[in-house]
Amino acid sequence: MTDDQKPEAPDPKAPDLEAIRAAAERIRPYAHRTPVLTSSSLNAMGGAELFFKCENLQKVGAFKFRGAANTVFSLSDAEASRGVATHSSGNHAQALALASRLRGVPAHIVMPENSPRVKVAAVRGYGARIIFCPPTQRDREQTLEKVVARTGAVFIHPYDNPGIIAGQGTCAMELMEQVPDLDTVIAPVGGGGLVSGTALACRFIRPVIRVIGVEPKGADDAFRSLRDGRIYPSENPRTIADGLRTSLGTLTFPIIRRYVERIVTVEEESIVEAMRAVWERMKILIEPSAAVPFAAVLEGKLERRSRRIGIILSGGNVDLDGLPWLDA
Amino acid sequence: MTDDQKPEAPDPKAPDLEAIRAAAERIRPYAHRTPVLTSSSLNAMGGAELFFKCENLQKVGAFKFRGAANTVFSLSDAEASRGVATHSSGNHAQALALASRLRGVPAHIVMPENSPRVKVAAVRGYGARIIFCPPTQRDREQTLEKVVARTGAVFIHPYDNPGIIAGQGTCAMELMEQVPDLDTVIAPVGGGGLVSGTALACRFIRPVIRVIGVEPKGADDAFRSLRDGRIYPSENPRTIADGLRTSLGTLTFPIIRRYVERIVTVEEESIVEAMRAVWERMKILIEPSAAVPFAAVLEGKLERRSRRIGIILSGGNVDLDGLPWLDA
Repeated sequence: MTDDQKPEAPDPKAPDLEAIRAAAERIRPYAHRTPVLTSSSLNAMGGAELFFKCENLQKVGAFKFRGAANTVFSLSDAEASRGVATHSSGNHAQALALASRLRGVPAHIVMPENSPRVKVAAVRGYGARIIFCPPTQRDREQTLEKVVARTGAVFIHPYDNPGIIAGQGTCAMELMEQVPDLDTVIAPVGGGGLVSGTALACRFIRPVIRVIGVEPKGADDAFRSLRDGRIYPSENPRTIADGLRTSLGTLTFPIIRRYVERIVTVEEESIVEAMRAVWERMKILIEPSAAVPFAAVLEGKLERRSRRIGIILSGGNVDLDGLPWLDA
Repeated sequence: MTDDQKPEAPDPKAPDLEAIRAAAERIRPYAHRTPVLTSSSLNAMGGAELFFKCENLQKVGAFKFRGAANTVFSLSDAEASRGVATHSSGNHAQALALASRLRGVPAHIVMPENSPRVKVAAVRGYGARIIFCPPTQRDREQTLEKVVARTGAVFIHPYDNPGIIAGQGTCAMELMEQVPDLDTVIAPVGGGGLVSGTALACRFIRPVIRVIGVEPKGADDAFRSLRDGRIYPSENPRTIADGLRTSLGTLTFPIIRRYVERIVTVEEESIVEAMRAVWERMKILIEPSAAVPFAAVLEGKLERRSRRIGIILSGGNVDLDGLPWLDA
């Protein structure tokens, strides 16, 4: 497809430009317009001009708040009154909890009973109701089904949901407003909500931008899925980047396949190196998953023609007592 | 003095409004216009609306770059050609080193021979010439004198210099542009360069703002100096806030005495608590000295009428291998 063709959405449920614009309007009263930071020393390390979109500074410390706020505030009053539900031990849980509190509706969060206490406390701190379950995917799904059946709450999937994808797309939309002449945007790939929203926003607004997804080599299911044209589940992922261990969804996969230029993978050592460099040089906290795109730059995985690169720093939720460079 | 009187500078060498404006113009091509961040949870902890001016995100990770850039770029070509010199093992050393490199002139930095290696490496990384000396104040001053005599370099004092104070004042000037209706601005007090520049900028531009200085109880020389009307040297300071162990200067003291509403002191435990809260909630790195103003908010040291408070986060240079909450 050439750049001047009007792109068609790859799936009737995939958000279009209007959906992303509407999401931006909808979340504006609640979400931060996060800053874009630059660093001469990171530019020197990366050999390009880098523009870091700081979603670690977003509400709840992650881009996930954009999608959650968009979906929660899209519900009709009747739907919303019964609340929302999801299963998650990560940033989506906190994001959905806060978005629900802001709308004044209940959030039911199914969490594995072995979830870190700090994460449970964070979700509870936003006023959500937590339902614990055994730590298997099957138990999570069954428990969620029961919660939905009993409460009538709306299930909000963490990424395979058009409202979530449109919400995540507002991040790249803002980035393009803040830095108008990027040639490349890179984002981490977990379930694909962020990278598919990013790819759609860039395609609709500035199609010359190459969108590249990055994932850890130890969780390269998206790389293999794109290569072979079918969704591989993420099995036994081995990576410090705990936000990127999930599989692609049936909604995110075709969007990524069509609009993401390629997926590259990075080593664990590069992730830790990138994370520490961002902390030390930019003075901001990022979680391992957020370091993955810059790790790709450090590994020289981008083409030389990528000169002005937007990097989405996806989140900053880390345990300050367990930093990776302090492990013996 | 009433607010509508035109304030007189308390010392003919103290910068006036024009000097601060000129400093802002002079450093604009080199310094970051740092963002102002907010956090609902920190507001809830502090019981007020807090606006954090992020000088930890400034070049070299500290507000010190403003003063250093202003002084270095104020020099005539003849003066500058011989370079600049100072003695410092802290952020001023890095700031002066980078400002000199940007102007293309030599920087001679006298550092105690027991300086942390990471700080030596940072100064050297900016291309400065380092001269080691025994770790006493007297050796530092004598070594610096010799360096100045030999090279003809201009000594740039870290705070008792009108160009430094004017440069530091640009931070509050920006903050007032970014958040027009503050009632209070708080800043840490070490040698007094930041708080005196802050107080002058507020006095000149929006005199209704109360400027409050904060220092650790274990380094309360400025508190005692203001109380008794004479400069007490900082002797045996005991605080984690290593940037605040210095004494007031003959130039900063009268400015603070006239324009800073008061100085409050905080406990060490509050400093660590404030530092960790900013890391966890705002996802940014701040050094202990930068946490001192928020510690004062947490301790309830500000008056209730302070509702919209600007907090200058002075810097973010920390050793990631030695965080205070990891000490056994």
